[in-house]
Amino acid sequence: MRWKSNKRGEKMGHNANLISIDALTEAELRALITRGQAFVDGAEAMALPRHACVCTLFFEPSTRTKLSFQRAAQRLAVDLLSFDVATSSTSKGETALDTMRNIEAMGVDVFVVRHKEDGTVDALAAGAMPTTRFVNAGDGRSNHPTQALLDMLTLQQSKGDDFSRLRVAIVGDVKHSRVARSDYQALSLLGVEDIRICGPQALLPDPAEMPRATFVDRLDEALSGVDVVMTLRLQRERMEAGLIDSLEGYHAAFGITQARMTGAKADAIVMHPGPMNRGVEIEDAVADGAQSRILQQVRNGVFARAAVLERALSRAHE
Amino acid sequence: MRWKSNKRGEKMGHNANLISIDALTEAELRALITRGQAFVDGAEAMALPRHACVCTLFFEPSTRTKLSFQRAAQRLAVDLLSFDVATSSTSKGETALDTMRNIEAMGVDVFVVRHKEDGTVDALAAGAMPTTRFVNAGDGRSNHPTQALLDMLTLQQSKGDDFSRLRVAIVGDVKHSRVARSDYQALSLLGVEDIRICGPQALLPDPAEMPRATFVDRLDEALSGVDVVMTLRLQRERMEAGLIDSLEGYHAAFGITQARMTGAKADAIVMHPGPMNRGVEIEDAVADGAQSRILQQVRNGVFARAAVLERALSRAHE
Amino acid sequence: MRWKSNKRGEKMGHNANLISIDALTEAELRALITRGQAFVDGAEAMALPRHACVCTLFFEPSTRTKLSFQRAAQRLAVDLLSFDVATSSTSKGETALDTMRNIEAMGVDVFVVRHKEDGTVDALAAGAMPTTRFVNAGDGRSNHPTQALLDMLTLQQSKGDDFSRLRVAIVGDVKHSRVARSDYQALSLLGVEDIRICGPQALLPDPAEMPRATFVDRLDEALSGVDVVMTLRLQRERMEAGLIDSLEGYHAAFGITQARMTGAKADAIVMHPGPMNRGVEIEDAVADGAQSRILQQVRNGVFARAAVLERALSRAHE
Repeated sequence: MRWKSNKRGEKMGHNANLISIDALTEAELRALITRGQAFVDGAEAMALPRHACVCTLFFEPSTRTKLSFQRAAQRLAVDLLSFDVATSSTSKGETALDTMRNIEAMGVDVFVVRHKEDGTVDALAAGAMPTTRFVNAGDGRSNHPTQALLDMLTLQQSKGDDFSRLRVAIVGDVKHSRVARSDYQALSLLGVEDIRICGPQALLPDPAEMPRATFVDRLDEALSGVDVVMTLRLQRERMEAGLIDSLEGYHAAFGITQARMTGAKADAIVMHPGPMNRGVEIEDAVADGAQSRILQQVRNGVFARAAVLERALSRAHE
Repeated sequence: MRWKSNKRGEKMGHNANLISIDALTEAELRALITRGQAFVDGAEAMALPRHACVCTLFFEPSTRTKLSFQRAAQRLAVDLLSFDVATSSTSKGETALDTMRNIEAMGVDVFVVRHKEDGTVDALAAGAMPTTRFVNAGDGRSNHPTQALLDMLTLQQSKGDDFSRLRVAIVGDVKHSRVARSDYQALSLLGVEDIRICGPQALLPDPAEMPRATFVDRLDEALSGVDVVMTLRLQRERMEAGLIDSLEGYHAAFGITQARMTGAKADAIVMHPGPMNRGVEIEDAVADGAQSRILQQVRNGVFARAAVLERALSRAHE
Repeated sequence: MRWKSNKRGEKMGHNANLISIDALTEAELRALITRGQAFVDGAEAMALPRHACVCTLFFEPSTRTKLSFQRAAQRLAVDLLSFDVATSSTSKGETALDTMRNIEAMGVDVFVVRHKEDGTVDALAAGAMPTTRFVNAGDGRSNHPTQALLDMLTLQQSKGDDFSRLRVAIVGDVKHSRVARSDYQALSLLGVEDIRICGPQALLPDPAEMPRATFVDRLDEALSGVDVVMTLRLQRERMEAGLIDSLEGYHAAFGITQARMTGAKADAIVMHPGPMNRGVEIEDAVADGAQSRILQQVRNGVFARAAVLERALSRAHE
């Protein structure tokens, strides 16, 4: 999970792919946050190569993330293609690599890829032409770097750009969550020292994956004095798989409610990557309340992704 | 079913949503018809806000209406997003309101919404930000205001802008038709005094819904001396539900044929909202004949919708 | 299968549809190849009518061909609509002709049509307005003219524009292939005298269809001394239908391998219309080897189609 290292990339000392947060330096991550904020504040995109083209290549359906990237591409006024492999009747047994290479040959500069298997985006990037860029729109349980970027942008808007003193709780199904992994990496890179992970035992990752984090059993303890609560979507499949007993039980133990939030700082903010299961991982009063930054996250998503695409496109033909 | 009344809208004394014809004044409706005709005549759209964005949000599939709105948005050279909730695998149990609010946060100025339930568009508009506009592309049996607008534009092209002396027959499954309801409202607003409703008893609405209309049993009586025949699509489900006996019987009693049209005025025109069931509600000779305005309706649809979107967008950020 | 002959077309002495290669003169075909090459070399499109619109109207799914046409339309900076009839829930029993006429009325200048039945594109063109143009994106087993155009462009890039001395083998399921038919026509028009057809007996067309071709039983004989090998996708349905015994047997007899290619000229090139069945009609070493022009074909496809659309659009309103 590194930046794609092709000869040109190495020579240039940078690479404009975004496959994982881990592959970014802190300076690169902060530059993306800053550029995202500039778009929020009304900046126009830089001039990009004529006929520059972004293609969303989704092997796993996600209308919401796709729309966000499409809107970001519109902000940049570049050409846009969309290929939904999941619903396409024409993949015809072709490999993901052949599919990508074919569309690449049509003149695509940046692929935005979602895939249900870990590492696929990296593998596609490794098989592409050296000038083609890749943005990971979510792969397996590993990475969702643009979600982490928009989360950091949202967090900075409320808490400023000194992340070092923040206390952050990540609550829920951390084990299966690429959002949580990418957020953990971004928080770490930005210097957050107090990262708490909280959820049912069966939904917790191997602590070795998140060495800087503190694993906390009880939600009250996790929320105590925090500045930020990041709650995660609970897939209903977890209950069917027997990993949790009931949605009601989950809500009682780990649902973010106004009552629970009294333990956090008075100005704590609540984030959720969407779509929400209202009444499961979060109650309406919090989701729609003053501490919620959930729609602000969505709004920032377009601008954060515009920053990522602009970075990729401005270097696509270097 | 009123214009969305938010504080800014009230202060401005207008509202640029289009949720039902009933919520328009006659002057507003005539202004939209006039602007639609200007587009037909080659007028270019006014300058709209940079990055202005229209999103078609269809909870019920309708490729044809969606394409018409897309082409209208292209005429205005604005950004376009499309979210087909019906076929999306990613609504994931989310409420329509949450779906709308999420896409709204991505920077959408105007939603074009179709939904199978009455009143949903109104409900979404009520839950949106005050600056977001809504255009109803058909909800339940209640409203299809842009269809009525394009019908009035088509009618004016043939019969002039004095609607008061026109005789109009609306024939078919009026009970289940949002087209018929919106057309009735538009005809009433424009001063048509002779509106005749004709169809099988089981497919007629409560007369109290259409107080200005005359309910006529026999088609010959309905067509006698009329200037305009508006025929409606017969959903095959009506037969399956036992509301009509057979398609053949329906055609014999209520199908628009050249023989039947001899009772209408010699220069009477025939309209149909499409898609047609040829040989059921209309015979080929009429559908493709000189009195047919059916393709002209489709053509006008793009321009009428461009007028509606332009109106909504030019006020989206007021 | 002729150019659509409407009054204006006849008067002008040309017609800007592209329904079959057979309907082109050699000069017209060479002009399209030349224009495609100009686009490859960086030429910009000519100025096209304001609001010019291309609509892909696919009655048979093909994401890959559709994307190629979309990218071509983006090169021309024209408006684009897409209607996938195969997956649409709203065709509602309407005829193909009614569907086309409705979308045409929305202001479409050029339809790009794919249909599983032979002759449908021609039939739609005959039913359209005289100013509307049609590009055949594949119909039945008959024609796929833009594939042949991009193949000829690819061939010319490697072998120059004197086609007369070339030796070309077309290998595989020629019987069911619209690609093979269009390639045969294009090769013939450009003066290729040595065209060899090779495949299992059950997958060979009537020789009367391809009078200039030599039918060859054994692959080694077909490849002997050739400049160009055009291999075709083997539909797995052929095996299910009993036309071939096994994929392994097919590969052994007709698969293009490096070992087989030793019989061809040392600088022979290999083409495939995609998507490939690796290990069936072609082995990896050839598909990804130095003689392969497969991705170059895809690249050329966008530019060849841009040439076709530009030709159609520049004459759409004459």
